[in-house]
Amino acid sequence: MEHPENSEEYKGLTVNKGIEQPSTINPYRKFQRKPKRQQLSAGDYVEGILQGNTTLLSQAVTLVESTLPEHQAIAQEIIEKCLPHAGRSVRIGISGVPGAGKSTSIDAFGLHVLERGGKLGVLAIDPSSERSKGSILGDKTRMEKLSVHPDSFIRPSPSAGSLGGVARKTRETIILCEAAGYDKIFVETVGVGQSETAVHSMVDFFLLIQLAGTGDELQGIKRGIMEMADGIVINKADGSNLEKAKLAAAHFRNALHLFPAPESGWTPRVLTYSGFYGLGIKEIWDMIYEYMDFVKANGYFQYRRNEQAKYWMYESINEQLRNSFYNNPTIADMLQTKENEVLGGTVTSFTAAHQLLSTYFKTKQ
Amino acid sequence: MEHPENSEEYKGLTVNKGIEQPSTINPYRKFQRKPKRQQLSAGDYVEGILQGNTTLLSQAVTLVESTLPEHQAIAQEIIEKCLPHAGRSVRIGISGVPGAGKSTSIDAFGLHVLERGGKLGVLAIDPSSERSKGSILGDKTRMEKLSVHPDSFIRPSPSAGSLGGVARKTRETIILCEAAGYDKIFVETVGVGQSETAVHSMVDFFLLIQLAGTGDELQGIKRGIMEMADGIVINKADGSNLEKAKLAAAHFRNALHLFPAPESGWTPRVLTYSGFYGLGIKEIWDMIYEYMDFVKANGYFQYRRNEQAKYWMYESINEQLRNSFYNNPTIADMLQTKENEVLGGTVTSFTAAHQLLSTYFKTKQ
Repeated sequence: MEHPENSEEYKGLTVNKGIEQPSTINPYRKFQRKPKRQQLSAGDYVEGILQGNTTLLSQAVTLVESTLPEHQAIAQEIIEKCLPHAGRSVRIGISGVPGAGKSTSIDAFGLHVLERGGKLGVLAIDPSSERSKGSILGDKTRMEKLSVHPDSFIRPSPSAGSLGGVARKTRETIILCEAAGYDKIFVETVGVGQSETAVHSMVDFFLLIQLAGTGDELQGIKRGIMEMADGIVINKADGSNLEKAKLAAAHFRNALHLFPAPESGWTPRVLTYSGFYGLGIKEIWDMIYEYMDFVKANGYFQYRRNEQAKYWMYESINEQLRNSFYNNPTIADMLQTKENEVLGGTVTSFTAAHQLLSTYFKTKQ
Repeated sequence: MEHPENSEEYKGLTVNKGIEQPSTINPYRKFQRKPKRQQLSAGDYVEGILQGNTTLLSQAVTLVESTLPEHQAIAQEIIEKCLPHAGRSVRIGISGVPGAGKSTSIDAFGLHVLERGGKLGVLAIDPSSERSKGSILGDKTRMEKLSVHPDSFIRPSPSAGSLGGVARKTRETIILCEAAGYDKIFVETVGVGQSETAVHSMVDFFLLIQLAGTGDELQGIKRGIMEMADGIVINKADGSNLEKAKLAAAHFRNALHLFPAPESGWTPRVLTYSGFYGLGIKEIWDMIYEYMDFVKANGYFQYRRNEQAKYWMYESINEQLRNSFYNNPTIADMLQTKENEVLGGTVTSFTAAHQLLSTYFKTKQ
């Protein structure tokens, strides 16, 4: 079933409320009639970001998301200069299948944490967003209250490229937001694919939103996602649905016993809430803050952040190695033939791989 | 707790009953006093294998497992020549945590399938085998009846190298066994790591052996393994343990509902049995043969085999790309420094990756 938010009808209603979309923004537009040398420097962006200037923050994120080499160069300079000011936030990954009520929940969660003080950045990872357009966080009206809150910064998923590319851009945007003083970061993703692994690799706490329902509905959880959760929360625990939600919570608690204990030493919890009626929100955030105290005390917090930094270095290396190989024109021409030979049983998978690699390394000489 | 089969005491009892160990075998030993040019050719090996000669099959597998380039060259030639005669077997992956009774079960399963006719090859994947020595299938006495059966061929896990390397060797050994007329192949692995994914990628049916027990024992299942299972079987369903085993089966059936339906369209089943007393074995194999009929009828069988062949081609490519990078002496020298810079927060993960890749590609010119 198509998610209603992706339907043509829904797209027709999309309104951008002052949130800049990468495809329509020229970050230099205000300097268009001035000579090129008067463009903002990396230092100018960094200064603005450190002062909490959201316009410059937005523009810097647009540079991060751009595929133009000159934009990438200045973006990397900005990120590097922001790095010493980053890292001081609580990063929460929020995942859930379409229909679980993520937008309403993030609206309610966001208002709740902002009542406790500080500033909130809401980002997203959705590698499919270029195709589906009406993508997660693409339409700010979905988060009615948060989108007009002065202390929130909402940014839709970067829209182009591979999961690795999209995830990298979101990770770099976290750095910019933190440098701009956002001390809570939500990273939303849709619970239907590998993007959860990417989100899990850049957050401190991974929250999985689920719905009560029949056994069939529970099957919407993709492989490996439940094991990543530090907390599972069952939405729509209200009215006549309350008992069903409690039952689902018990079901998930049992299922969690089937998985090994997380490395953090934390025992994942299952709670119920209602995003729409704002019930049980405080308990969720009490749990998250308890987790933060727990992992900061046992050293896992810093350990995980270090592992994540290394993970992304190796991910970047491996992705670029693969890109260099598969985007090589000689290899691209040869690949289908070799695949057919393997399927036809005339060469082994290993020999085909070996032949392709020999060809590739010859082109690099 | 150390698995008793890995203990020093157990190792002391190790007996090789005519099963050749890669470390002690010179495949050319019978020609040692003859001039080198009289070594067997790839064609000689292939001829022997096609005739079902287990000595030549064993020697060819030793060549596959060797890391010497000249052995690899002849091994690849043998495999290539065997390929047209391979593929006509039922490949079963068998996994379970240490202590689940895999050896006794494989002994019982093997005798059962051999009663139905045909020939059985039993292989293993255990990337840790070089370290632990007393490794899975390393000691043939663990499968008392199967090890002396004339229609079985048992081969321990290749002992050297990365998971990718070990898995490739096992995959190539499957080809040789099939060419030698083995129409059932078991691939054993220990249910504690990533090797399950490798086994899953080379078999038609993935069987997970579990034990009844407390919630704590069930936690021995690693992430993602349960989702791979086409069938889960609870061992030691005998005597006073019978009720507990039935309860565990119900538990697993419920847990399976939490996962999405497998691509095959098959609904994974949970059965109980006793490997030691030989109870419920027939039912397990009825299930597996029902599965085979099902996936052959709906086309998934051939689809999965094609996907596996492609998977191994791309895995080989990606592994060799990574090896070429990380084994590059300049990169090996530079990597720790860059990692420290990333952890120190002076460069981003992406910039460090970029610097390493530029250096690497310069060394390839």
